[in-house]
Amino acid sequence: MEERIEISMLLDYYSVLLTDKQNDIMTLYYNEDLSLAEIAELNDTSRQAIHDTIRRCNKLLLDYESKLGLMSKNQGLADSRESINLKLDIIKKKTSDKEILELLDDIEKNISECF
Amino acid sequence: MEERIEISMLLDYYSVLLTDKQNDIMTLYYNEDLSLAEIAELNDTSRQAIHDTIRRCNKLLLDYESKLGLMSKNQGLADSRESINLKLDIIKKKTSDKEILELLDDIEKNISECF
Repeated sequence: MEERIEISMLLDYYSVLLTDKQNDIMTLYYNEDLSLAEIAELNDTSRQAIHDTIRRCNKLLLDYESKLGLMSKNQGLADSRESINLKLDIIKKKTSDKEILELLDDIEKNISECF
Repeated sequence: MEERIEISMLLDYYSVLLTDKQNDIMTLYYNEDLSLAEIAELNDTSRQAIHDTIRRCNKLLLDYESKLGLMSKNQGLADSRESINLKLDIIKKKTSDKEILELLDDIEKNISECF
């Protein structure tokens, strides 16, 4: 995965563990595509200071993912969900039992809620 | 939930975010039930230092849970899994179609793998 995209995705999982200041800078750089110079001006600091913050936060985000693996687990859950839903659809096509069809709908609802 | 049990459970989720030293002390206190004095002796430090580390780590663990909510999400997943498995069992009892039964087994396997 391209590093820029990876960092932007990791922010979805771990931004709560960064400070507000770190979050602002990371969001401006990775999600709003501002340059280091523009972010430095907005924060009344140097381009180098912003660069250092971004580098430090990148390291933090990759470290959190290597320890907690929330992004990778979530990808696994999404794959499983897709696989389960495909099987539920096949069963739906093979039965006309009303109670079974209702149970299958309920299971689909459970799955969409918990993934 | 009793605080001691809660902290011990939170350690299952967030111990990876503590240092090795913090982890050792928390494990001895919460999982192996050693006293502050015993842990202090093992670490060649004061009872007060151990007490401070435990208090600091408790705060860290509760803070991680309030931000990431992994324990509470996992409890939700466990409830959903139980509910889905109950429904799968009812469908199994209502059908004799071999292909449907195989699909239901596969779904159960998917669910046990991803929760």
